[in-house]
Amino acid sequence: MIIFLKPQATPEGVQEILTHITSIGLTALTRAGNGSTSIIVIGDEGLLPSVDLKGHSDVEEIKAIRTPYKLVSRETHSHDTVVTVGGVPIGGQRFAVIAGPCSVESHSQMRNTALAVKAAGAVGLRAGAFKPRSSPYAFQGLGLKGLEILRDVGSELAMPVITEVMDTADVDMVAAHAQCLQIGARNMHNSSLLKAVGQLRMPVVLKRGMSAKVEDLLLAAEYILAEGNDQVILCERGIRTFETATRNTLDLNAIPYLKQRTHLPVVVDPSHGTGVRSLVTPMAKAAAACGADGILVEVHENPKVALSDGAQSLDLPGFQRFMQELGPVVRALGREMP
Amino acid sequence: MIIFLKPQATPEGVQEILTHITSIGLTALTRAGNGSTSIIVIGDEGLLPSVDLKGHSDVEEIKAIRTPYKLVSRETHSHDTVVTVGGVPIGGQRFAVIAGPCSVESHSQMRNTALAVKAAGAVGLRAGAFKPRSSPYAFQGLGLKGLEILRDVGSELAMPVITEVMDTADVDMVAAHAQCLQIGARNMHNSSLLKAVGQLRMPVVLKRGMSAKVEDLLLAAEYILAEGNDQVILCERGIRTFETATRNTLDLNAIPYLKQRTHLPVVVDPSHGTGVRSLVTPMAKAAAACGADGILVEVHENPKVALSDGAQSLDLPGFQRFMQELGPVVRALGREMP
Amino acid sequence: MIIFLKPQATPEGVQEILTHITSIGLTALTRAGNGSTSIIVIGDEGLLPSVDLKGHSDVEEIKAIRTPYKLVSRETHSHDTVVTVGGVPIGGQRFAVIAGPCSVESHSQMRNTALAVKAAGAVGLRAGAFKPRSSPYAFQGLGLKGLEILRDVGSELAMPVITEVMDTADVDMVAAHAQCLQIGARNMHNSSLLKAVGQLRMPVVLKRGMSAKVEDLLLAAEYILAEGNDQVILCERGIRTFETATRNTLDLNAIPYLKQRTHLPVVVDPSHGTGVRSLVTPMAKAAAACGADGILVEVHENPKVALSDGAQSLDLPGFQRFMQELGPVVRALGREMP
Amino acid sequence: MIIFLKPQATPEGVQEILTHITSIGLTALTRAGNGSTSIIVIGDEGLLPSVDLKGHSDVEEIKAIRTPYKLVSRETHSHDTVVTVGGVPIGGQRFAVIAGPCSVESHSQMRNTALAVKAAGAVGLRAGAFKPRSSPYAFQGLGLKGLEILRDVGSELAMPVITEVMDTADVDMVAAHAQCLQIGARNMHNSSLLKAVGQLRMPVVLKRGMSAKVEDLLLAAEYILAEGNDQVILCERGIRTFETATRNTLDLNAIPYLKQRTHLPVVVDPSHGTGVRSLVTPMAKAAAACGADGILVEVHENPKVALSDGAQSLDLPGFQRFMQELGPVVRALGREMP
Repeated sequence: MIIFLKPQATPEGVQEILTHITSIGLTALTRAGNGSTSIIVIGDEGLLPSVDLKGHSDVEEIKAIRTPYKLVSRETHSHDTVVTVGGVPIGGQRFAVIAGPCSVESHSQMRNTALAVKAAGAVGLRAGAFKPRSSPYAFQGLGLKGLEILRDVGSELAMPVITEVMDTADVDMVAAHAQCLQIGARNMHNSSLLKAVGQLRMPVVLKRGMSAKVEDLLLAAEYILAEGNDQVILCERGIRTFETATRNTLDLNAIPYLKQRTHLPVVVDPSHGTGVRSLVTPMAKAAAACGADGILVEVHENPKVALSDGAQSLDLPGFQRFMQELGPVVRALGREMP
Repeated sequence: MIIFLKPQATPEGVQEILTHITSIGLTALTRAGNGSTSIIVIGDEGLLPSVDLKGHSDVEEIKAIRTPYKLVSRETHSHDTVVTVGGVPIGGQRFAVIAGPCSVESHSQMRNTALAVKAAGAVGLRAGAFKPRSSPYAFQGLGLKGLEILRDVGSELAMPVITEVMDTADVDMVAAHAQCLQIGARNMHNSSLLKAVGQLRMPVVLKRGMSAKVEDLLLAAEYILAEGNDQVILCERGIRTFETATRNTLDLNAIPYLKQRTHLPVVVDPSHGTGVRSLVTPMAKAAAACGADGILVEVHENPKVALSDGAQSLDLPGFQRFMQELGPVVRALGREMP
Repeated sequence: MIIFLKPQATPEGVQEILTHITSIGLTALTRAGNGSTSIIVIGDEGLLPSVDLKGHSDVEEIKAIRTPYKLVSRETHSHDTVVTVGGVPIGGQRFAVIAGPCSVESHSQMRNTALAVKAAGAVGLRAGAFKPRSSPYAFQGLGLKGLEILRDVGSELAMPVITEVMDTADVDMVAAHAQCLQIGARNMHNSSLLKAVGQLRMPVVLKRGMSAKVEDLLLAAEYILAEGNDQVILCERGIRTFETATRNTLDLNAIPYLKQRTHLPVVVDPSHGTGVRSLVTPMAKAAAACGADGILVEVHENPKVALSDGAQSLDLPGFQRFMQELGPVVRALGREMP
Repeated sequence: MIIFLKPQATPEGVQEILTHITSIGLTALTRAGNGSTSIIVIGDEGLLPSVDLKGHSDVEEIKAIRTPYKLVSRETHSHDTVVTVGGVPIGGQRFAVIAGPCSVESHSQMRNTALAVKAAGAVGLRAGAFKPRSSPYAFQGLGLKGLEILRDVGSELAMPVITEVMDTADVDMVAAHAQCLQIGARNMHNSSLLKAVGQLRMPVVLKRGMSAKVEDLLLAAEYILAEGNDQVILCERGIRTFETATRNTLDLNAIPYLKQRTHLPVVVDPSHGTGVRSLVTPMAKAAAACGADGILVEVHENPKVALSDGAQSLDLPGFQRFMQELGPVVRALGREMP
């Protein structure tokens, strides 16, 4: 529900309105813009009918928000949100490429890769210290040691770091080592974790679950915004379908669909979205062409010996070519890229 | 890897073998049975080739475990595991029906439903105090208050209680109020949570994720067993497909497939598996017919006013008919039911 | 649209009504039953609003048919249709098992299999002379020679024969050699073929397409009934999903769903529905338990050398056990089986 | 199997080889290129081991073709095939846009649309006279009358015409009115129809079935090439998944995957691939960016009154904007477009 206030609304009247809303058990968010003020009311949908403000002298109009997601919707926030990750804006005029290995394996692996991707134009570093794996016997990541390597390399090269958090108990520790947290596809439905990162005031990349509808993704983002953190970047990374030629089916329909419905930036991960190295570059170009704000891509100095996701990782010269091929497409769309 | 010991193996030799395994960083589990002893070796797959015991004088034979899941496989444990939930055996000769509302809503709702389902033959009580919901604005469950209601009603009526845990931080609290924990479909891939319940020594119902392959489900169970908790009950509850006539597509192929591969008991949730009240009873009969060990089913005293899942909940007379229809099928298969 | 006539409706009035309907370009079907008569109006949905009979003196009531499928719906035909295939009723009290090899390979293969399945209780024979294959280089069936073998063996053993037709040009030829035609999953959307078999007056088994929703299946059946052939048997044979442990995902939810909506008989093919021999018998039992009217199952005298579908075919002793296991379940449901 | 001949091979020796192959029941296709000659052997895979030519004096080398599809594979034909449709090349340097309404509805509708799309840069005309519809009561197309309108408009405006054929019985009639036939998604598995168009020597657009894997699409194309018609254009048009926000999930991964494996041109249909007008232009740009050779797009002079697919059709000004947005992307990739 959005309550549009009259221009001449008084502070006392606004206070009265806010008190009415919170007394019902709902949350009121005040938004000022373009000379007018509005109040967004969120909370348990069953309580909304109890809001009784139609006749209030300071209320101009009351509108329902038609989508089940409220704060992520363009209905409540029409212009593009730009999320700044360690000084790098995601979602604006510049197209962002964030690169790095699937897993942090060692300081030298991390540093070599970071140096190379930075030289080729990447603006951020991605790598996992906590790895969600199907098997308990597969490499689970270096944990805290991995986080420390990431922080050190990112800091040395002045590259913001994005890394995954998998457990509410680890949120503070991961947040202390990175400029942006990632919620992985397997945790997109983990509402406890969504609420926990919603308590932070730092950027979060939220990956689409492998069987999540785009509406599910928007609702998962809503969990984070409803807790007060609006620095959310959505990420399409492929869905699970019957097709076995590729690891996942990259659903690029989702990019323009999301951009039309939400003000949040949207990036694409063509590495997981294809699972096949030779498809990564063409799909990154396609992602840019249909409106993505950036790319997360896996790069490893030696994919053959990678501890995870080697088959879908670009090597260092491959990443250079990736950037060279991507540039002309991005610029043809009127956006900038190094 | 399974190491079969010679009948005449000495305690010193066995100790030597165990030391060798743990020195590599792997875990050794000793299994005695039928006069012979074997040692199951699990852990990081990359380390297995370092085990060097072929020539050891106490070793009869070494076999690889072909499946990626080890402890849940019939290769390492050939006979059926029976998990006892508050005195009720799941997985043996008796077919178990566990019933209750989707969410705990109040003490009277819980008690009325529990009385009715017990009278009709249910052997356990299921209900959620923590509810995973797509929208942050939907009813999220009563939390601790819900757990207390559940514990009180279960205790009064001598019915074991199964309820969902969604967060590692809540595991101890939920465990203190229930006889069996449930990991929901949205958390099947949440390895932190799987490891946390693996630390317990109490039954866990593990629901298949909505886009999880049956092998993913077996590997998720392996996470729990690898931590030392082997009281796991698998639950098929429908997968996400293109079909929209039903909420999910109940994949009953999975039942005989799982029963052939794992020793763990397998139950079916036809409520989520269909999402349609009129399909619940026929699909429960089908589940029994293809080998399920029991049913989890949603029952509400007044589905029209249920705070969640009303459309798929049986009412109390509906549950009575459910039991009357299910009985003859179960007995035709040579199993018992009240 | 269903037009219910008054009990005292006159022949002249009825004729007037029928003329009105056909003059618009719609089709009128008269149904008499229980002392009352009704007229079902089908055809181009855009023309229905032109029917102007509300004030007609012989009209009691006019009702819209809510489902997009009309003649297959229980709204226009509430009781179960029994389709008789060469004397064998499908859809009534008796549960029907129809068995045979995937492909006709030779007279002796066909005859040996037919003798064995008949002895074990099968009431019909199934086999393909025209085989839809993914690759043009795979065995495409024996064609006319296969049809002749089928007809001869069926006739000798007094077993009705069901076989697939793949091309409108072959409909008459196939119809001349069989008691029932089959439209395969790959042709369920082939409306030319559906219309062609709709012109016949003989039974048709219509298999669900591998990505067809149940509503698509009902609409495909409607194509046949709209041409005047109401002897249609629906067949669930598995849908294509992300699961790779089985060839298809047998969607048994569809069985009670279909039985509630259509009067047509519904059978299940657990061979294609699983693709795995060891799953065929349990899934046939499940199909019976949730309300199927019969089973189509692949049986081969020597599955190892079968020219197609060997991995999912039962051998002859396997089929005997299949019947022995299926019987008690069918009888527990109050139905009969040899 | 590919048999590479020695440079000095004699006509008699080659004849001997061809006779050996055909005597086994296989087909031999001779390919000359780059001063060397090879013979491709296709047919029943079971017969291939009978080819006994290793010691033949004119044979240089014999290689298996590893993919199940042979003639469509780059293994047997490494360079890009350009299919010429009524003078318009598809698959080369120029990016082709083929536009038109879903269905032919009238001469004026067809002519108005054709004039507008030609003016905006479309090089071909697409529309359906035979429409595959889920319901028998939906508009089925104008049939022969529609074909005549198409032929007349195409001829007047010098635009090649692409239209669907649904029945083997109609192949000659449709071929007589169009420059290119289309096999629709619902008929991709209809091997009778594939064989029938394989007998022609004219271009065919083959659309991917809604549940077809890319390998299935390649095998369906192989059916056509195996009959002797190599003028095949593949078309990705979306697959059926759990996502309901869009009509289908456009699988653009398939574009680079196909281009790497087959020499045939690949086009994309973003109208069916999304089902949503506002997504058509961004997805066309994405298709171009990942390597498609052209676009098939639905355009209607007044989508609100379209007899089919109105929701996904561009209107005439919308198509102009489509071309204006697509051009820069295509040119950034080094290809040409009007």
